[in-house]
Amino acid sequence: MDGLQHANDAGTTLELSRFLAGSRWQDIPPEVRHEASRALLNCLGCALGGARHATVDRALAAIGAFSGPAQASVLGRGERLDAPRAALVNGISAHVLDFDDTHQRAIHVSAPVLPALLAYAEWRPVSGAQLLHAFVLGVEAECRIGLSVFPEHYDRGWHITGTAGLFGAAAAIGKLLNLNDKMMAHALGCAATQAAGLRAMFGSMCKSLHAGRAAEGGFVAAMLAASGFTSAANAIEAPRGFARVLSPRFDPAYVTDGLGRRYEISQNLYKPYSCGLWMHATIDGCIALAREHDLKPEAIERIALTVAPHVLELTGHPAPGTGLESKFSIYHAAAVALIDRAAGEAQFSDRRALDAGLIALRGRVSARPDPAIGKFEARIAVVLRDGRRLERHVTRVLGTRERPMSDRDLEDKFRALARDALAPAQANRLIGLCWSAGSLADAGVLARAAVPAA
Amino acid sequence: MDGLQHANDAGTTLELSRFLAGSRWQDIPPEVRHEASRALLNCLGCALGGARHATVDRALAAIGAFSGPAQASVLGRGERLDAPRAALVNGISAHVLDFDDTHQRAIHVSAPVLPALLAYAEWRPVSGAQLLHAFVLGVEAECRIGLSVFPEHYDRGWHITGTAGLFGAAAAIGKLLNLNDKMMAHALGCAATQAAGLRAMFGSMCKSLHAGRAAEGGFVAAMLAASGFTSAANAIEAPRGFARVLSPRFDPAYVTDGLGRRYEISQNLYKPYSCGLWMHATIDGCIALAREHDLKPEAIERIALTVAPHVLELTGHPAPGTGLESKFSIYHAAAVALIDRAAGEAQFSDRRALDAGLIALRGRVSARPDPAIGKFEARIAVVLRDGRRLERHVTRVLGTRERPMSDRDLEDKFRALARDALAPAQANRLIGLCWSAGSLADAGVLARAAVPAA
Repeated sequence: MDGLQHANDAGTTLELSRFLAGSRWQDIPPEVRHEASRALLNCLGCALGGARHATVDRALAAIGAFSGPAQASVLGRGERLDAPRAALVNGISAHVLDFDDTHQRAIHVSAPVLPALLAYAEWRPVSGAQLLHAFVLGVEAECRIGLSVFPEHYDRGWHITGTAGLFGAAAAIGKLLNLNDKMMAHALGCAATQAAGLRAMFGSMCKSLHAGRAAEGGFVAAMLAASGFTSAANAIEAPRGFARVLSPRFDPAYVTDGLGRRYEISQNLYKPYSCGLWMHATIDGCIALAREHDLKPEAIERIALTVAPHVLELTGHPAPGTGLESKFSIYHAAAVALIDRAAGEAQFSDRRALDAGLIALRGRVSARPDPAIGKFEARIAVVLRDGRRLERHVTRVLGTRERPMSDRDLEDKFRALARDALAPAQANRLIGLCWSAGSLADAGVLARAAVPAA
Repeated sequence: MDGLQHANDAGTTLELSRFLAGSRWQDIPPEVRHEASRALLNCLGCALGGARHATVDRALAAIGAFSGPAQASVLGRGERLDAPRAALVNGISAHVLDFDDTHQRAIHVSAPVLPALLAYAEWRPVSGAQLLHAFVLGVEAECRIGLSVFPEHYDRGWHITGTAGLFGAAAAIGKLLNLNDKMMAHALGCAATQAAGLRAMFGSMCKSLHAGRAAEGGFVAAMLAASGFTSAANAIEAPRGFARVLSPRFDPAYVTDGLGRRYEISQNLYKPYSCGLWMHATIDGCIALAREHDLKPEAIERIALTVAPHVLELTGHPAPGTGLESKFSIYHAAAVALIDRAAGEAQFSDRRALDAGLIALRGRVSARPDPAIGKFEARIAVVLRDGRRLERHVTRVLGTRERPMSDRDLEDKFRALARDALAPAQANRLIGLCWSAGSLADAGVLARAAVPAA
């Protein structure tokens, strides 16, 4: 169906619900299935890396006394919780490092959806194909509904990962529950009426709570619908429904156009570096120069960066004293990328921010703003003590659509993130499970394999 | 998309939090304490009356498998759930009949707050005074924040009971947890960022889910804050905070003016009749006429109503076939009020809608619209078979501020609502507990006494 047929939005929720209920695994193209495995690997890595974050510790302390049967694992840790609460906590850990995936730089795709599915799969038998299929469909609902109100919805102050994420988790769990189209519409309605998450929370622990609440709330929304709970059948497009109440603009065609012909997960992006996107071009170029010329920090006289003006506004911290501050320092980023040839969580730790060698090199980095330079662009000049001058103009940054992270890149990122939680052999086993997820008889093994050996 | 943007402007959230954290039980005037007991009695009655509603059955079916320790009772039933989930289910049953209290005809005050408190009080030791105090403060936060964006917030499509209710439950539980002002602000922030509930859901089971989710979400928000979880310290007034994102208008003075000098619970209203407010004047007059003249239905020739035009638009169903339909029939309402001299849930049951004697009298009711008649006004003429004509012009309806329900009225309403759940002696005991709630050593007895004897 083309967009014109949807000028009238009557039935948007039901049309999407029919697609979700009717979709079969054999309809999903191989490259889409593989993208789902890539997102699974990336999301598990982020959750493992975030598992010991104070945000997760405190969420567990807050809800621990209330948890039901030990149905599902807290990824990267030892606790077991009832399934929706495991979804809550794992949604938090998957998003807390802000290192998780994004769709068109807006919605953090996997953190609200996969934790719900992984918890469900430990609770009730689900095959790997069922899980990947439900994941692809959850992402479909999440991104299409989110984009139908983007960017106005986000501009108004909604954290779209929290709001759209609820639909994603509800659709995904609804698929595992085998809901028919009408019940799926009620699941989306029960999700719509829980949609929440304010951008005022950015910079606080509540930001990752949004992903967790989306996972938990969507899980429960689907369970409610499966139990016969009713909502509005037109929750997305109703006059007082999701889109109209939470956004000044709504384009229903985004929800329904090309359903089944293209899959939103194909637009998914993965962050190679554990910091804001504005620093990625500089990091990218510094890693490349260090590798190509096998640079040693002591050989470097000075580094001169030319970057977009926004880079200095957002990440101009000259002397970061903590790991968090170092994520807002282009000077730290350039220095650590040259020394470590990496920019993962380990490169933005408190320890690294205070490392003497790193501080010394950081002091030799200068940065000049240039309005002609774009977001994913940087000019880097490294002047060596022997007088040589190495230059690099970065225009195609790793992790963008022009240069996606390879499967190997994702594996490397996963290993770095999983390092504190899993032994190397266990990490490698989990990588293998993600690549073969579509053929697993029991998808519950994915979550169980993401728990440290006793 | 993850910039940090806080502008700590007016300090509205912190000023409210300071008041909530600093308030002492001895500060609460006796008449405010008594109003809290009245609201408690009314809320428990509504929950008992709604306990066997299909909405509650299905919510329990959806979440039953996930519940944690048996910490708190499902009111009016036998199940025990973990405390936040008991709050969820009891919030649903307290609101599902739409018979619960309202503040200035906008916010359903108690359903999001008391279920959270009652569940907490079964989980951890709380005195009756602590519970009533926390209740008064929860209502204060709920109503002040809600009114600061009312009516524009509601007009945009938000179910204000769901959104404001979250603050109420968070403030109330936060008080029981003895949070200091900063932690209370984080509790309100964790509530703000879960605020949800769409008016598109009116007429579906999700409407009462909003009250339940507010109770559960507010409970968890306070637990998160108590565990050190952080949110924005200016969650209400921030540029991308609750008020600005969810409403086109925000008047912070509503939140902070006169804190501690007046209490919003004093403005609370109770519904005497289990139907929309537009039918209340007619019911009121019919009950009064039947009582004064000891009318028997067979003595009545016909009834002529003169009502506001809106009454016929909203409640003009001539021949309701179900209990739900009978709530939208001014003819049924007049007839059942004359016969039963009451208009509670029992008067709007499927059985009564199909009762032959009632149908006969209903057929002798006529109604004429008159634009000069107001919402809480009706002219009633009852012509008897013996030729007498009895007239009544109702202008002061029971349950309005001009003529509040008396304590005795509330007891009668409670007994009628509790009838299917509790034996008369048990109902009377619970009434006594409500009136003496402020002196109870263990407030958990309130919820336990609202469970049917085995």
